[in-house]
Amino acid sequence: MTILMDEAALNTFLKERFPQADGFVVREVTQDGCVVEMPTRDGHLRPGGTVSGPTMFALADVAVYLAILARIGPVELAVTTNASIDFMRKPIAGKPLVATARLLKLGRVLAVGDVLIQSEGASGPVARATATYSIPPTR
Amino acid sequence: MTILMDEAALNTFLKERFPQADGFVVREVTQDGCVVEMPTRDGHLRPGGTVSGPTMFALADVAVYLAILARIGPVELAVTTNASIDFMRKPIAGKPLVATARLLKLGRVLAVGDVLIQSEGASGPVARATATYSIPPTR
Amino acid sequence: MTILMDEAALNTFLKERFPQADGFVVREVTQDGCVVEMPTRDGHLRPGGTVSGPTMFALADVAVYLAILARIGPVELAVTTNASIDFMRKPIAGKPLVATARLLKLGRVLAVGDVLIQSEGASGPVARATATYSIPPTR
Amino acid sequence: MTILMDEAALNTFLKERFPQADGFVVREVTQDGCVVEMPTRDGHLRPGGTVSGPTMFALADVAVYLAILARIGPVELAVTTNASIDFMRKPIAGKPLVATARLLKLGRVLAVGDVLIQSEGASGPVARATATYSIPPTR
Repeated sequence: MTILMDEAALNTFLKERFPQADGFVVREVTQDGCVVEMPTRDGHLRPGGTVSGPTMFALADVAVYLAILARIGPVELAVTTNASIDFMRKPIAGKPLVATARLLKLGRVLAVGDVLIQSEGASGPVARATATYSIPPTR
Repeated sequence: MTILMDEAALNTFLKERFPQADGFVVREVTQDGCVVEMPTRDGHLRPGGTVSGPTMFALADVAVYLAILARIGPVELAVTTNASIDFMRKPIAGKPLVATARLLKLGRVLAVGDVLIQSEGASGPVARATATYSIPPTR
Repeated sequence: MTILMDEAALNTFLKERFPQADGFVVREVTQDGCVVEMPTRDGHLRPGGTVSGPTMFALADVAVYLAILARIGPVELAVTTNASIDFMRKPIAGKPLVATARLLKLGRVLAVGDVLIQSEGASGPVARATATYSIPPTR
Repeated sequence: MTILMDEAALNTFLKERFPQADGFVVREVTQDGCVVEMPTRDGHLRPGGTVSGPTMFALADVAVYLAILARIGPVELAVTTNASIDFMRKPIAGKPLVATARLLKLGRVLAVGDVLIQSEGASGPVARATATYSIPPTR
Protein backbone atom coordinates (compact mmCIF):
# COMPACT_ATOMS: atom_id res chain seq x y z
CA MET A 1 0.00 0.00 0.00
CA THR A 2 1.39 3.34 -1.04
CA ILE A 3 1.38 6.33 1.26
CA LEU A 4 0.56 9.47 -0.75
CA MET A 5 0.85 11.99 2.08
CA ASP A 6 3.35 11.75 4.91
CA GLU A 7 3.41 13.57 8.27
CA ALA A 8 4.71 16.82 6.79
CA ALA A 9 2.20 16.84 3.93
CA LEU A 10 -0.72 16.13 6.26
CA ASN A 11 0.36 18.80 8.73
CA THR A 12 0.60 21.37 5.96
CA PHE A 13 -2.84 20.33 4.67
CA LEU A 14 -4.29 20.66 8.19
CA LYS A 15 -2.86 24.11 8.70
CA GLU A 16 -4.01 25.45 5.33
CA ARG A 17 -7.43 23.90 5.05
CA PHE A 18 -8.58 23.10 8.60
CA PRO A 19 -8.13 26.18 10.73
CA GLN A 20 -10.55 24.56 13.16
CA ALA A 21 -8.14 21.72 13.83
CA ASP A 22 -5.90 24.37 15.29
CA GLY A 23 -3.10 22.75 17.23
CA PHE A 24 -3.63 19.20 16.00
CA VAL A 25 -0.33 17.64 14.93
CA VAL A 26 0.17 14.45 12.91
CA ARG A 27 2.91 12.56 14.73
CA GLU A 28 3.09 9.44 12.60
CA VAL A 29 1.72 7.92 9.42
CA THR A 30 1.70 4.15 9.13
CA GLN A 31 0.60 1.65 6.51
CA ASP A 32 -2.89 1.44 7.95
CA GLY A 33 -3.39 4.65 9.87
CA CYS A 34 -1.92 7.60 11.69
CA VAL A 35 -1.34 9.15 15.10
CA VAL A 36 -2.63 12.66 15.80
CA GLU A 37 -1.88 14.68 18.92
CA MET A 38 -4.04 17.41 20.37
CA PRO A 39 -2.58 19.74 22.95
CA THR A 40 -5.00 20.63 25.73
CA ARG A 41 -5.96 24.25 25.47
CA ASP A 42 -8.45 26.28 27.44
CA GLY A 43 -10.90 26.54 24.58
CA HIS A 44 -11.44 22.79 24.57
CA LEU A 45 -12.13 22.45 28.26
CA ARG A 46 -15.32 21.64 30.11
CA PRO A 47 -15.92 22.85 33.63
CA GLY A 48 -13.65 20.65 35.74
CA GLY A 49 -10.66 21.06 33.43
CA THR A 50 -11.19 18.07 31.17
CA VAL A 51 -11.55 18.06 27.42
CA SER A 52 -15.12 18.25 26.14
CA GLY A 53 -16.80 15.39 24.29
CA PRO A 54 -17.27 17.34 21.05
CA THR A 55 -13.56 18.17 21.05
CA MET A 56 -12.68 14.49 21.33
CA PHE A 57 -15.19 13.79 18.58
CA ALA A 58 -13.45 16.39 16.39
CA LEU A 59 -10.08 14.78 17.09
CA ALA A 60 -11.35 11.30 16.19
CA ASP A 61 -13.11 12.54 13.07
CA VAL A 62 -10.01 14.37 11.82
CA ALA A 63 -7.73 11.43 12.62
CA VAL A 64 -9.75 9.07 10.41
CA TYR A 65 -9.90 11.72 7.69
CA LEU A 66 -6.12 12.10 7.75
CA ALA A 67 -5.63 8.33 7.67
CA ILE A 68 -7.70 8.31 4.46
CA LEU A 69 -5.84 11.25 2.92
CA ALA A 70 -2.52 9.57 3.65
CA ARG A 71 -3.63 6.88 1.23
CA ILE A 72 -5.63 8.73 -1.42
CA GLY A 73 -4.09 12.21 -1.36
CA PRO A 74 -5.64 15.61 -0.55
CA VAL A 75 -9.31 14.93 -1.42
CA GLU A 76 -11.00 17.83 0.26
CA LEU A 77 -14.56 16.78 -0.35
CA ALA A 78 -14.63 13.52 1.55
CA VAL A 79 -17.38 13.85 4.17
CA THR A 80 -18.26 11.94 7.31
CA THR A 81 -21.53 10.07 6.86
CA ASN A 82 -21.62 8.28 10.18
CA ALA A 83 -19.69 8.20 13.42
CA SER A 84 -20.04 6.63 16.83
CA ILE A 85 -18.02 7.37 19.92
CA ASP A 86 -17.68 5.92 23.41
CA PHE A 87 -16.36 8.11 26.19
CA MET A 88 -14.79 5.75 28.69
CA ARG A 89 -12.62 7.67 31.12
CA LYS A 90 -11.96 11.27 32.07
CA PRO A 91 -8.94 12.71 30.26
CA ILE A 92 -6.22 13.88 32.64
CA ALA A 93 -6.39 17.67 32.97
CA GLY A 94 -3.55 19.47 31.25
CA LYS A 95 -2.26 16.46 29.35
CA PRO A 96 -2.33 16.19 25.54
CA LEU A 97 -4.62 13.67 23.89
CA VAL A 98 -3.22 11.19 21.41
CA ALA A 99 -5.50 9.63 18.78
CA THR A 100 -4.43 6.48 16.97
CA ALA A 101 -6.51 5.92 13.84
CA ARG A 102 -6.63 2.68 11.89
CA LEU A 103 -8.16 2.38 8.43
CA LEU A 104 -10.34 -0.75 8.31
CA LYS A 105 -11.77 -0.31 4.85
CA LEU A 106 -10.84 1.92 1.94
CA GLY A 107 -13.41 1.26 -0.74
CA ARG A 108 -14.24 3.13 -3.89
CA VAL A 109 -17.15 4.94 -2.26
CA LEU A 110 -16.88 4.41 1.50
CA ALA A 111 -13.97 4.31 3.92
CA VAL A 112 -14.19 3.16 7.54
CA GLY A 113 -11.70 3.78 10.30
CA ASP A 114 -11.58 3.47 14.05
CA VAL A 115 -9.71 5.50 16.62
CA LEU A 116 -8.43 5.01 20.14
CA ILE A 117 -7.82 8.19 22.15
CA GLN A 118 -5.30 8.07 24.98
CA SER A 119 -4.54 10.64 27.64
CA GLU A 120 -1.12 10.47 29.22
CA GLY A 121 -1.39 9.10 32.72
CA ALA A 122 -4.88 7.61 32.38
CA SER A 123 -5.34 3.93 33.24
CA GLY A 124 -6.76 3.10 29.80
CA PRO A 125 -8.10 4.72 26.63
CA VAL A 126 -10.31 7.76 27.30
CA ALA A 127 -12.42 7.26 24.18
CA ARG A 128 -12.90 5.11 21.12
CA ALA A 129 -14.65 6.08 17.93
CA THR A 130 -15.48 4.84 14.45
CA ALA A 131 -16.15 7.02 11.44
CA THR A 132 -17.35 6.34 7.91
CA TYR A 133 -16.38 8.72 5.14
CA SER A 134 -18.00 9.02 1.75
CA ILE A 135 -15.38 9.57 -0.94
CA PRO A 136 -16.45 11.63 -3.95
CA PRO A 137 -16.02 9.96 -7.35
CA THR A 138 -12.85 11.05 -9.15
CA ARG A 139 -12.58 11.66 -12.84
CA MET B 1 -43.95 14.15 34.15
CA THR B 2 -42.76 17.29 35.82
CA ILE B 3 -40.56 19.81 34.05
CA LEU B 4 -37.93 21.13 36.50
CA MET B 5 -36.24 23.61 34.16
CA ASP B 6 -38.03 25.63 31.51
CA GLU B 7 -36.61 27.53 28.52
CA ALA B 8 -35.44 30.48 30.60
CA ALA B 9 -33.79 28.28 33.25
CA LEU B 10 -31.99 26.19 30.64
CA ASN B 11 -30.79 29.24 28.73
CA THR B 12 -29.40 30.77 31.92
CA PHE B 13 -27.70 27.47 32.77
CA LEU B 14 -26.18 27.30 29.27
CA LYS B 15 -24.84 30.82 29.44
CA GLU B 16 -23.32 30.42 32.90
CA ARG B 17 -21.89 26.93 32.67
CA PHE B 18 -21.37 26.20 28.98
CA PRO B 19 -19.46 29.05 27.42
CA GLN B 20 -18.65 26.63 24.58
CA ALA B 21 -22.29 26.39 23.62
CA ASP B 22 -22.03 30.06 22.80
CA GLY B 23 -25.02 31.15 20.80
CA PHE B 24 -27.15 28.04 21.38
CA VAL B 25 -30.68 28.99 22.40
CA VAL B 26 -33.34 26.72 23.88
CA ARG B 27 -36.53 27.54 21.97
CA GLU B 28 -38.93 25.11 23.55
CA VAL B 29 -39.18 22.54 26.32
CA THR B 30 -41.75 19.81 25.96
CA GLN B 31 -42.83 16.84 28.05
CA ASP B 32 -40.34 14.55 26.36
CA GLY B 33 -37.67 16.82 24.97
CA CYS B 34 -36.59 20.22 23.78
CA VAL B 35 -35.74 22.31 20.73
CA VAL B 36 -32.35 24.04 20.55
CA GLU B 37 -31.31 26.51 17.87
CA MET B 38 -27.78 27.21 16.75
CA PRO B 39 -27.08 30.32 14.72
CA THR B 40 -24.53 29.78 11.97
CA ARG B 41 -21.39 31.65 12.77
CA ASP B 42 -18.06 31.72 11.00
CA GLY B 43 -16.27 29.77 13.68
CA HIS B 44 -18.43 26.72 13.04
CA LEU B 45 -17.93 26.61 9.31
CA ARG B 46 -16.03 24.18 7.14
CA PRO B 47 -14.53 25.22 3.83
CA GLY B 48 -17.56 25.57 1.57
CA GLY B 49 -19.59 27.51 4.08
CA THR B 50 -21.41 24.64 5.77
CA VAL B 51 -21.39 23.76 9.42
CA SER B 52 -18.75 21.24 10.48
CA GLY B 53 -19.59 17.76 11.68
CA PRO B 54 -18.14 18.27 15.17
CA THR B 55 -20.28 21.39 15.56
CA MET B 56 -23.42 19.41 14.73
CA PHE B 57 -22.23 16.75 17.14
CA ALA B 58 -21.88 19.41 19.85
CA LEU B 59 -25.38 20.68 19.13
CA ALA B 60 -26.90 17.19 19.33
CA ASP B 61 -24.97 16.34 22.49
CA VAL B 62 -26.07 19.53 24.24
CA ALA B 63 -29.68 19.13 23.11
CA VAL B 64 -29.95 15.70 24.75
CA TYR B 65 -28.23 17.03 27.86
CA LEU B 66 -30.72 19.90 28.13
CA ALA B 67 -33.64 17.53 27.60
CA ILE B 68 -32.37 15.57 30.61
CA LEU B 69 -31.82 18.66 32.75
CA ALA B 70 -35.34 19.85 31.96
CA ARG B 71 -36.54 16.78 33.84
CA ILE B 72 -33.99 16.28 36.62
CA GLY B 73 -32.72 19.81 37.24
CA PRO B 74 -29.23 21.32 36.91
CA VAL B 75 -27.09 18.18 37.41
CA GLU B 76 -23.77 19.37 36.14
CA LEU B 77 -21.92 16.10 36.33
CA ALA B 78 -23.96 14.05 33.90
CA VAL B 79 -21.56 12.87 31.19
CA THR B 80 -22.03 11.42 27.72
CA THR B 81 -20.94 7.79 27.64
CA ASN B 82 -21.86 7.02 24.04
CA ALA B 83 -23.12 8.82 20.96
CA SER B 84 -23.71 8.04 17.32
CA ILE B 85 -24.47 10.47 14.55
CA ASP B 86 -25.45 10.26 10.89
CA PHE B 87 -24.75 13.19 8.63
CA MET B 88 -27.34 12.99 5.87
CA ARG B 89 -27.45 16.26 3.96
CA LYS B 90 -25.42 19.42 3.69
CA PRO B 91 -26.76 22.21 5.90
CA ILE B 92 -27.79 25.30 3.96
CA ALA B 93 -25.05 27.93 4.27
CA GLY B 94 -26.00 30.87 6.43
CA LYS B 95 -29.12 29.28 7.90
CA PRO B 96 -29.50 28.40 11.59
CA LEU B 97 -29.66 24.75 12.62
CA VAL B 98 -32.55 23.54 14.74
CA ALA B 99 -32.12 20.43 16.90
CA THR B 100 -35.17 18.61 18.23
CA ALA B 101 -34.24 16.26 21.07
CA ARG B 102 -36.49 13.55 22.42
CA LEU B 103 -35.83 11.71 25.68
CA LEU B 104 -36.38 7.97 25.12
CA LYS B 105 -35.26 6.73 28.51
CA LEU B 106 -34.63 8.46 31.79
CA GLY B 107 -33.37 5.78 34.14
CA ARG B 108 -31.73 6.00 37.51
CA VAL B 109 -28.26 5.58 36.02
CA LEU B 110 -28.55 6.02 32.24
CA ALA B 111 -30.57 8.35 30.04
CA VAL B 112 -30.96 7.99 26.27
CA GLY B 113 -32.17 10.60 23.83
CA ASP B 114 -32.21 11.08 20.11
CA VAL B 115 -32.02 14.24 18.04
CA LEU B 116 -33.05 15.37 14.58
CA ILE B 117 -31.19 18.38 13.18
CA GLN B 118 -32.91 20.49 10.56
CA SER B 119 -31.54 23.29 8.43
CA GLU B 120 -34.06 25.76 7.08
CA GLY B 121 -34.57 25.20 3.38
CA ALA B 122 -33.04 21.70 3.23
CA SER B 123 -35.16 18.89 1.75
CA GLY B 124 -34.93 16.76 4.89
CA PRO B 125 -33.05 16.48 8.18
CA VAL B 126 -29.32 17.25 7.88
CA ALA B 127 -28.34 14.93 10.72
CA ARG B 128 -29.65 12.56 13.34
CA ALA B 129 -27.94 11.52 16.52
CA THR B 130 -28.41 9.48 19.67
CA ALA B 131 -26.63 10.07 22.96
CA THR B 132 -26.46 8.16 26.24
CA TYR B 133 -25.72 10.03 29.44
CA SER B 134 -24.58 8.58 32.71
CA ILE B 135 -26.30 10.30 35.61
CA PRO B 136 -24.32 10.53 38.85
CA PRO B 137 -26.00 9.11 41.96
CA THR B 138 -27.68 11.79 44.07
CA ARG B 139 -27.60 11.92 47.80
CA MET C 1 -43.56 10.28 -2.81
CA THR C 2 -44.74 7.13 -4.48
CA ILE C 3 -45.06 3.85 -2.64
CA LEU C 4 -43.90 1.00 -4.89
CA MET C 5 -44.62 -1.88 -2.51
CA ASP C 6 -47.54 -1.99 -0.10
CA GLU C 7 -48.11 -4.23 2.93
CA ALA C 8 -49.13 -7.25 0.84
CA ALA C 9 -46.19 -6.91 -1.58
CA LEU C 10 -43.68 -6.56 1.28
CA ASN C 11 -45.12 -9.52 3.17
CA THR C 12 -44.89 -11.69 0.07
CA PHE C 13 -41.30 -10.53 -0.50
CA LEU C 14 -40.42 -11.34 3.12
CA LYS C 15 -41.89 -14.81 2.94
CA GLU C 16 -40.21 -15.71 -0.37
CA ARG C 17 -36.78 -14.16 0.13
CA PHE C 18 -36.24 -13.88 3.88
CA PRO C 19 -37.01 -17.20 5.51
CA GLN C 20 -35.01 -15.93 8.49
CA ALA C 21 -37.53 -13.18 9.12
CA ASP C 22 -39.95 -15.98 9.83
CA GLY C 23 -43.02 -14.60 11.52
CA PHE C 24 -42.34 -10.92 10.87
CA VAL C 25 -45.43 -9.19 9.49
CA VAL C 26 -45.63 -5.76 7.87
CA ARG C 27 -48.64 -4.09 9.45
CA GLU C 28 -48.53 -0.72 7.76
CA VAL C 29 -46.69 1.19 5.07
CA THR C 30 -46.67 4.97 5.29
CA GLN C 31 -45.17 7.79 3.23
CA ASP C 32 -41.96 7.76 5.23
CA GLY C 33 -41.75 4.32 6.77
CA CYS C 34 -43.46 1.16 7.91
CA VAL C 35 -44.56 -0.81 10.95
CA VAL C 36 -43.36 -4.40 11.37
CA GLU C 37 -44.57 -6.81 14.05
CA MET C 38 -42.63 -9.72 15.44
CA PRO C 39 -44.50 -12.36 17.42
CA THR C 40 -42.57 -13.63 20.41
CA ARG C 41 -41.57 -17.20 19.82
CA ASP C 42 -39.40 -19.53 21.87
CA GLY C 43 -36.54 -19.42 19.40
CA HIS C 44 -36.01 -15.73 20.01
CA LEU C 45 -35.93 -15.87 23.76
CA ARG C 46 -33.11 -15.39 26.21
CA PRO C 47 -33.07 -17.07 29.59
CA GLY C 48 -35.67 -15.12 31.56
CA GLY C 49 -38.23 -15.15 28.79
CA THR C 50 -37.35 -11.91 27.05
CA VAL C 51 -36.37 -11.40 23.44
CA SER C 52 -32.63 -11.46 22.74
CA GLY C 53 -30.70 -8.40 21.59
CA PRO C 54 -29.70 -9.90 18.23
CA THR C 55 -33.35 -10.69 17.53
CA MET C 56 -34.30 -7.06 18.16
CA PHE C 57 -31.38 -6.04 15.95
CA ALA C 58 -32.72 -8.30 13.18
CA LEU C 59 -36.18 -6.76 13.54
CA ALA C 60 -34.82 -3.20 13.34
CA ASP C 61 -32.58 -4.05 10.40
CA VAL C 62 -35.41 -5.65 8.43
CA ALA C 63 -37.82 -2.82 9.25
CA VAL C 64 -35.49 -0.20 7.72
CA TYR C 65 -34.89 -2.48 4.73
CA LEU C 66 -38.62 -2.84 4.14
CA ALA C 67 -39.13 0.93 4.48
CA ILE C 68 -36.58 1.35 1.68
CA LEU C 69 -38.14 -1.34 -0.53
CA ALA C 70 -41.55 0.26 -0.11
CA ARG C 71 -40.10 3.25 -1.95
CA ILE C 72 -37.69 1.74 -4.46
CA GLY C 73 -39.18 -1.70 -5.12
CA PRO C 74 -37.74 -5.20 -4.52
CA VAL C 75 -34.00 -4.44 -4.70
CA GLU C 76 -32.55 -7.57 -3.18
CA LEU C 77 -28.94 -6.49 -3.05
CA ALA C 78 -29.20 -3.50 -0.75
CA VAL C 79 -26.91 -4.22 2.20
CA THR C 80 -26.57 -2.74 5.67
CA THR C 81 -23.28 -0.87 5.98
CA ASN C 82 -23.74 0.46 9.50
CA ALA C 83 -26.16 0.13 12.37
CA SER C 84 -26.39 1.26 15.96
CA ILE C 85 -28.86 0.12 18.57
CA ASP C 86 -29.77 1.09 22.13
CA PHE C 87 -31.50 -1.43 24.35
CA MET C 88 -33.47 0.61 26.86
CA ARG C 89 -35.98 -1.60 28.61
CA LYS C 90 -36.76 -5.28 28.97
CA PRO C 91 -39.43 -6.44 26.53
CA ILE C 92 -42.49 -7.88 28.25
CA ALA C 93 -42.34 -11.68 28.10
CA GLY C 94 -44.87 -13.21 25.76
CA LYS C 95 -45.85 -9.95 24.06
CA PRO C 96 -45.17 -9.19 20.39
CA LEU C 97 -42.65 -6.49 19.47
CA VAL C 98 -43.69 -3.69 17.15
CA ALA C 99 -41.02 -1.84 15.15
CA THR C 100 -41.83 1.53 13.62
CA ALA C 101 -39.27 2.49 10.96
CA ARG C 102 -38.87 5.96 9.51
CA LEU C 103 -36.82 6.70 6.41
CA LEU C 104 -34.69 9.79 7.05
CA LYS C 105 -32.71 9.79 3.83
CA LEU C 106 -33.15 7.98 0.55
CA GLY C 107 -30.17 8.94 -1.57
CA ARG C 108 -28.84 7.51 -4.79
CA VAL C 109 -26.21 5.47 -2.96
CA LEU C 110 -27.08 5.50 0.75
CA ALA C 111 -30.35 5.30 2.67
CA VAL C 112 -30.71 5.96 6.40
CA GLY C 113 -33.61 5.00 8.61
CA ASP C 114 -34.32 4.84 12.30
CA VAL C 115 -36.56 2.50 14.26
CA LEU C 116 -38.39 2.53 17.56
CA ILE C 117 -39.28 -0.88 19.01
CA GLN C 118 -42.20 -1.10 21.39
CA SER C 119 -43.37 -3.99 23.53
CA GLU C 120 -47.00 -3.99 24.55
CA GLY C 121 -47.31 -3.10 28.22
CA ALA C 122 -43.82 -1.61 28.64
CA SER C 123 -43.53 1.92 30.02
CA GLY C 124 -41.60 3.19 26.99
CA PRO C 125 -39.76 1.96 23.90
CA VAL C 126 -37.65 -1.17 24.50
CA ALA C 127 -35.09 -0.27 21.86
CA ARG C 128 -34.12 2.26 19.22
CA ALA C 129 -31.89 1.70 16.25
CA THR C 130 -30.53 3.38 13.14
CA ALA C 131 -29.36 1.60 10.01
CA THR C 132 -27.62 2.74 6.84
CA TYR C 133 -28.10 0.75 3.66
CA SER C 134 -25.96 0.88 0.55
CA ILE C 135 -28.12 0.72 -2.56
CA PRO C 136 -26.56 -0.93 -5.61
CA PRO C 137 -26.48 1.17 -8.79
CA THR C 138 -29.31 0.35 -11.19
CA ARG C 139 -29.02 0.22 -14.91
CA MET D 1 -5.43 -8.78 35.71
CA THR D 2 -6.85 -12.10 36.76
CA ILE D 3 -8.73 -14.33 34.35
CA LEU D 4 -11.68 -15.92 36.16
CA MET D 5 -12.96 -18.06 33.27
CA ASP D 6 -10.73 -19.72 30.69
CA GLU D 7 -11.65 -21.19 27.29
CA ALA D 8 -13.11 -24.38 28.75
CA ALA D 9 -15.18 -22.53 31.38
CA LEU D 10 -16.57 -20.09 28.81
CA ASN D 11 -17.42 -22.86 26.35
CA THR D 12 -19.28 -24.78 29.05
CA PHE D 13 -21.13 -21.61 30.06
CA LEU D 14 -22.09 -20.96 26.41
CA LYS D 15 -23.39 -24.47 25.90
CA GLU D 16 -25.45 -24.51 29.09
CA ARG D 17 -26.86 -20.99 29.12
CA PHE D 18 -26.80 -19.77 25.51
CA PRO D 19 -28.40 -22.41 23.31
CA GLN D 20 -28.79 -19.64 20.73
CA ALA D 21 -25.05 -19.28 20.38
CA ASP D 22 -25.13 -22.82 19.04
CA GLY D 23 -21.84 -23.64 17.43
CA PHE D 24 -19.87 -20.68 18.73
CA VAL D 25 -16.53 -21.78 20.16
CA VAL D 26 -14.17 -19.75 22.34
CA ARG D 27 -10.72 -20.35 20.86
CA GLU D 28 -8.63 -18.17 23.10
CA VAL D 29 -8.83 -16.00 26.20
CA THR D 30 -6.26 -13.27 26.62
CA GLN D 31 -5.57 -10.61 29.22
CA ASP D 32 -7.79 -8.09 27.48
CA GLY D 33 -10.18 -10.12 25.39
CA CYS D 34 -11.02 -13.34 23.60
CA VAL D 35 -11.35 -14.99 20.21
CA VAL D 36 -14.64 -16.65 19.26
CA GLU D 37 -15.22 -18.73 16.15
CA MET D 38 -18.53 -19.25 14.41
CA PRO D 39 -18.85 -22.06 11.89
CA THR D 40 -20.95 -21.12 8.86
CA ARG D 41 -24.14 -23.08 8.94
CA ASP D 42 -27.17 -22.91 6.69
CA GLY D 43 -29.36 -21.28 9.30
CA HIS D 44 -27.17 -18.20 9.39
CA LEU D 45 -27.09 -17.62 5.66
CA ARG D 46 -28.64 -14.90 3.54
CA PRO D 47 -29.58 -15.51 -0.06
CA GLY D 48 -26.22 -15.59 -1.85
CA GLY D 49 -24.57 -17.85 0.70
CA THR D 50 -23.10 -15.21 2.99
CA VAL D 51 -23.70 -14.80 6.69
CA SER D 52 -26.50 -12.41 7.61
CA GLY D 53 -25.90 -9.11 9.39
CA PRO D 54 -27.88 -10.05 12.51
CA THR D 55 -25.80 -13.22 12.83
CA MET D 56 -22.58 -11.19 12.76
CA PHE D 57 -24.15 -8.85 15.29
CA ALA D 58 -24.92 -11.84 17.53
CA LEU D 59 -21.34 -13.05 17.21
CA ALA D 60 -19.90 -9.63 18.11
CA ASP D 61 -22.31 -9.19 21.01
CA VAL D 62 -21.48 -12.60 22.47
CA ALA D 63 -17.73 -12.09 21.99
CA VAL D 64 -17.75 -8.90 24.10
CA TYR D 65 -19.95 -10.62 26.69
CA LEU D 66 -17.50 -13.51 26.96
CA ALA D 67 -14.54 -11.13 27.22
CA ILE D 68 -16.30 -9.56 30.23
CA LEU D 69 -17.16 -12.91 31.83
CA ALA D 70 -13.55 -14.02 31.47
CA ARG D 71 -12.70 -11.25 33.88
CA ILE D 72 -15.67 -11.08 36.27
CA GLY D 73 -16.97 -14.66 36.22
CA PRO D 74 -20.36 -16.06 35.15
CA VAL D 75 -22.58 -12.99 35.71
CA GLU D 76 -25.65 -13.97 33.78
CA LEU D 77 -27.52 -10.73 34.09
CA ALA D 78 -25.14 -8.40 32.31
CA VAL D 79 -27.10 -6.84 29.44
CA THR D 80 -26.12 -4.97 26.31
CA THR D 81 -27.21 -1.35 26.53
CA ASN D 82 -25.72 -0.12 23.26
CA ALA D 83 -23.98 -1.50 20.21
CA SER D 84 -22.82 -0.27 16.85
CA ILE D 85 -21.61 -2.31 13.93
CA ASP D 86 -20.05 -1.63 10.54
CA PHE D 87 -20.36 -4.24 7.82
CA MET D 88 -17.37 -3.70 5.56
CA ARG D 89 -16.92 -6.69 3.28
CA LYS D 90 -18.85 -9.76 2.26
CA PRO D 91 -17.86 -12.84 4.29
CA ILE D 92 -16.50 -15.65 2.14
CA ALA D 93 -19.22 -18.27 1.65
CA GLY D 94 -18.61 -21.48 3.53
CA LYS D 95 -15.79 -20.14 5.67
CA PRO D 96 -16.00 -19.76 9.46
CA LEU D 97 -16.04 -16.27 10.99
CA VAL D 98 -13.54 -15.39 13.69
CA ALA D 99 -14.33 -12.59 16.13
CA THR D 100 -11.56 -10.99 18.17
CA ALA D 101 -12.94 -9.02 21.11
CA ARG D 102 -10.96 -6.53 23.15
CA LEU D 103 -12.15 -5.12 26.47
CA LEU D 104 -11.55 -1.36 26.51
CA LYS D 105 -13.21 -0.55 29.80
CA LEU D 106 -14.35 -2.70 32.68
CA GLY D 107 -16.01 -0.34 35.12
CA ARG D 108 -18.16 -0.98 38.14
CA VAL D 109 -21.35 -0.33 36.19
CA LEU D 110 -20.44 -0.28 32.49
CA ALA D 111 -18.07 -2.32 30.34
CA VAL D 112 -17.10 -1.48 26.76
CA GLY D 113 -15.49 -3.76 24.21
CA ASP D 114 -14.85 -3.75 20.52
CA VAL D 115 -14.68 -6.60 18.05
CA LEU D 116 -13.09 -7.28 14.69
CA ILE D 117 -14.68 -10.06 12.62
CA GLN D 118 -12.54 -11.82 10.04
CA SER D 119 -13.53 -14.30 7.38
CA GLU D 120 -10.81 -16.60 6.14
CA GLY D 121 -9.71 -15.56 2.68
CA ALA D 122 -11.23 -12.05 2.74
CA SER D 123 -8.91 -9.11 2.00
CA GLY D 124 -9.69 -7.39 5.30
CA PRO D 125 -12.06 -7.53 8.27
CA VAL D 126 -15.69 -8.21 7.29
CA ALA D 127 -17.13 -6.27 10.22
CA ARG D 128 -16.28 -4.27 13.30
CA ALA D 129 -18.48 -3.65 16.28
CA THR D 130 -18.53 -2.05 19.71
CA ALA D 131 -20.81 -3.05 22.56
CA THR D 132 -21.52 -1.59 25.99
CA TYR D 133 -22.74 -3.86 28.75
CA SER D 134 -24.41 -2.84 31.97
CA ILE D 135 -23.16 -4.95 34.86
CA PRO D 136 -25.61 -5.57 37.69
CA PRO D 137 -24.45 -4.56 41.18
CA THR D 138 -23.12 -7.48 43.19
CA ARG D 139 -23.60 -7.96 46.86
